[in-house]
Amino acid sequence: MLTLYPDAFPGVLDTSIIGTAAKNGLWQLETVDIRDFAVNRHRTVDGPPAGGGAGLVLKPDISAKAIDSVVRPDGNSGDDRPLLYMTPRGKPLTQDRVKQLAAGPGLVCFCGRFEGLDERVIESRGMEEVSIGDFVLAGGEVAAQAMIEACVRLLPGVLGNSDSAAEESFETGLLEYPLYTKPRMFEGREIPAVLSSGDHGAVDRWRRAQMEEITKARRPDLWDAHLKRQGDSPSRSEDHERD
Amino acid sequence: MLTLYPDAFPGVLDTSIIGTAAKNGLWQLETVDIRDFAVNRHRTVDGPPAGGGAGLVLKPDISAKAIDSVVRPDGNSGDDRPLLYMTPRGKPLTQDRVKQLAAGPGLVCFCGRFEGLDERVIESRGMEEVSIGDFVLAGGEVAAQAMIEACVRLLPGVLGNSDSAAEESFETGLLEYPLYTKPRMFEGREIPAVLSSGDHGAVDRWRRAQMEEITKARRPDLWDAHLKRQGDSPSRSEDHERD
Repeated sequence: MLTLYPDAFPGVLDTSIIGTAAKNGLWQLETVDIRDFAVNRHRTVDGPPAGGGAGLVLKPDISAKAIDSVVRPDGNSGDDRPLLYMTPRGKPLTQDRVKQLAAGPGLVCFCGRFEGLDERVIESRGMEEVSIGDFVLAGGEVAAQAMIEACVRLLPGVLGNSDSAAEESFETGLLEYPLYTKPRMFEGREIPAVLSSGDHGAVDRWRRAQMEEITKARRPDLWDAHLKRQGDSPSRSEDHERD
Repeated sequence: MLTLYPDAFPGVLDTSIIGTAAKNGLWQLETVDIRDFAVNRHRTVDGPPAGGGAGLVLKPDISAKAIDSVVRPDGNSGDDRPLLYMTPRGKPLTQDRVKQLAAGPGLVCFCGRFEGLDERVIESRGMEEVSIGDFVLAGGEVAAQAMIEACVRLLPGVLGNSDSAAEESFETGLLEYPLYTKPRMFEGREIPAVLSSGDHGAVDRWRRAQMEEITKARRPDLWDAHLKRQGDSPSRSEDHERD
């Protein structure tokens, strides 16, 4: 984790099953302070944007030195971890990408600050620009923590019940169905009768219908993508069985 | 902040301009431990999902008590803060919503854990379901921290240079243009000549063209929304001046 705020880590990642998994050696995180690569006595890491405008830009030479201290620029170091840069200009992070990252050799992540990083470093170091959402943060640190948490919970041994990663939102391309637990009656609101019927087929059909309805209502973009996938593979359940 | 992990806060929010702003009294955060509202001696807050399946669901009675300790259920408390619930089933957080929240009276946020919260609490308490992205976290805490950071940086006095919130990604509906700073030459890559031309009009046109090109290439969804907005208000610059 390349950052100007190493103290921001582990932050929330020290908590709950994610923190426990670190204590159990299932994952680890190291921080590199970008400012350690500054060369003048003021430890300057930023400069005004070329062409004018507000804010400050992370200097290419300093940033590149920080990156190269972790990932070798010649590509011959045998380090095939992806080099990510957290920025709202990036490709939106998806559960599919999270799964790839979690299954991979780890990752190197550069947390931006100020207006952002000099474009020439992004190009020359082949950085993968990643966004966690269409909003602007003060820096990449909290975005990186969200991404790491999403990845770590998929590592073997982290979730108590390995099933619970299978049925949730995005694993099927649809949003999750509504959840209920006891008491049966809460402030005059009853758990839907089908869920107490003991008819597993009926429960599954009800949940599937809820997933479709909720996705259609809340996320027409996901619904369209879902329909498109179904259209692309009409014998989808068969394909799935063959996988 | 309603959470099962109060120790997760302030986390990253203690760092940088966001942490300094808290120390300067520009914003504050209080945590409520949902587990304090458990009623049995095991302090149970969860139960198995009605209808079967993996994982655990946050109990409606306990969750509602925790919420009602902060937000009065009769709606007569004069507390008009929105009650948010962080969940991947929610409406994707946008910079527009962040701006509304930052301009509002504050917020109350419920951080989910396990499979999620009993649907009847979401309904009865009129919770606004918010998602920071299409991926699954271990809990709502890091999502809440991202949202809070996005809001706090917009509060008056938090950003050093008030201009720097104006030109960045999403403020215009487009992704930001590439950034450069000295040195002029970095590993054989030069800062684009137009940015050193001193011709402010040419700089603005180049940046605008870059914003459009990058948005078109990376985020066809944002580009379509942009075109639609332009189509809806053909005399957009005039409208803007009248605002």
